[in-house]
Amino acid sequence: MDSFSERLVAAVGATGPLCAGIDPSAALLARWGLTDDGAGLAEFGSRCVEAFAGVVPVVKPQVAFFERHGSAGFAALERVIAEARTAGLLVIADAKRGDMDSTMDAYADAWLGPDGPFQADAVTATPYLGIGSLRPLFDVARANARGVFVVVRSSNPEGRPLQEALTAGGSSVEDGLLADLGRLNGSEPGTPGPFGAVVGATLSPSAFVLSQFNGPFLAPGVGAQGAGPADVAALFAGCTPGSVLPSVSRSVLTAGPSAEALRSAAARARDDLAAAIG
Amino acid sequence: MDSFSERLVAAVGATGPLCAGIDPSAALLARWGLTDDGAGLAEFGSRCVEAFAGVVPVVKPQVAFFERHGSAGFAALERVIAEARTAGLLVIADAKRGDMDSTMDAYADAWLGPDGPFQADAVTATPYLGIGSLRPLFDVARANARGVFVVVRSSNPEGRPLQEALTAGGSSVEDGLLADLGRLNGSEPGTPGPFGAVVGATLSPSAFVLSQFNGPFLAPGVGAQGAGPADVAALFAGCTPGSVLPSVSRSVLTAGPSAEALRSAAARARDDLAAAIG
Repeated sequence: MDSFSERLVAAVGATGPLCAGIDPSAALLARWGLTDDGAGLAEFGSRCVEAFAGVVPVVKPQVAFFERHGSAGFAALERVIAEARTAGLLVIADAKRGDMDSTMDAYADAWLGPDGPFQADAVTATPYLGIGSLRPLFDVARANARGVFVVVRSSNPEGRPLQEALTAGGSSVEDGLLADLGRLNGSEPGTPGPFGAVVGATLSPSAFVLSQFNGPFLAPGVGAQGAGPADVAALFAGCTPGSVLPSVSRSVLTAGPSAEALRSAAARARDDLAAAIG
Repeated sequence: MDSFSERLVAAVGATGPLCAGIDPSAALLARWGLTDDGAGLAEFGSRCVEAFAGVVPVVKPQVAFFERHGSAGFAALERVIAEARTAGLLVIADAKRGDMDSTMDAYADAWLGPDGPFQADAVTATPYLGIGSLRPLFDVARANARGVFVVVRSSNPEGRPLQEALTAGGSSVEDGLLADLGRLNGSEPGTPGPFGAVVGATLSPSAFVLSQFNGPFLAPGVGAQGAGPADVAALFAGCTPGSVLPSVSRSVLTAGPSAEALRSAAARARDDLAAAIG
């Protein structure tokens, strides 16, 4: 099977540069006239898959909104991921998991393992316990042609003090993580490996030159959170075509529940981004 | 209802200073002769609850091992938490969640909300997106007399570079988080508030004087990970009685599956810790 990054670059090249969030918050469930329970979550997800298939290359279910309903929510998530993959969409599970040792093995098995319950193409992870603690996730991802996006620079202002703190090596935490991920990918810039970075589109660049990174970028913060296509284009100037994946959630999902309206909103966001970042 | 910290200090005072992990890894399920599926997880958890009730004040299910089996695993976790609380045990869900905005609201509802599926007494959280991003979790915890333990100093060496990085304010990330949590608790040292810190028992002290912290401590790394009762006593010298909760998992769980053997192992670990930290 092709690697995750090969599949990602091909899908973005074929369909356009947009990851559509599947964020069934209580507010959006109510707005769509759905029940706030496992059945409502599954229906929300199915409608997203139906609307987004063929329009965007990647969907990103936000795990928290499914977890809010416990086992019933996770049953819905299992179904939504399976439906999305059947529809030809790549799936990034936005789980932001992060632990160590056998615990990290278990998260890796859950999200990226060959027999795992969720079968995502990639998962997001947080590095507070150190990039080395995520090693089991990287190993399972590589062995199964899947990907990992590590949160490096989140799109919220509260993350700045920690992410800009200076490590003993002299670089900021976030720049150090990009260097670490680059070493783990082991490839040349321009040839993205399976280990990507979440870099918020709302923020100014740091010292690390993003075009020199050899992994994919997931860029939240577009749309309702404030960044526009021009911000994305400026931040990721010179990056490998197809390796930059801006993510939009609320500003598309509030167009629902009509499949036609969702599809139009997603296509418009995609085309605006494609025009800006090429 | 009494606050989480009041309940924690009372329970530790009555039963002893030990949190027993419920870690149904694939290896431990096999060792206990249980199936590696939702039924095996539920049975493992039930046996832990039966063995630990009355012997330790707090249990800590490790969410990753349940998540490994998806919705079936979470159904088992819901059952195990309910059984533990019915048996009079306090439950800390070791989920290490961390996100922002409405996503963090959803995690807060899931783990600590009055109508949530899991109904833990407290949950662990990671602060990579900034302590401010966890605000929804703190708000829900306080409103429902529950607690939060933020991972500050993890017990693994890979966490050191990030956790020791220097923030613009001049303190390390970990010391800055302790100061932030102290402000959120808002109480005097000696009167622990609901927001605690995970501080690994395997590591040397930092500049922050832990006895001046006004929240509870969860201290993993005891037993199989290498720290002994004397290490715990030295690290937390002068801290409020009942506010320090060392956590032991593998070294007790490998004594199973016999309830009597588990109970003896937990009681021995508890008594060793009580003798050291008083």
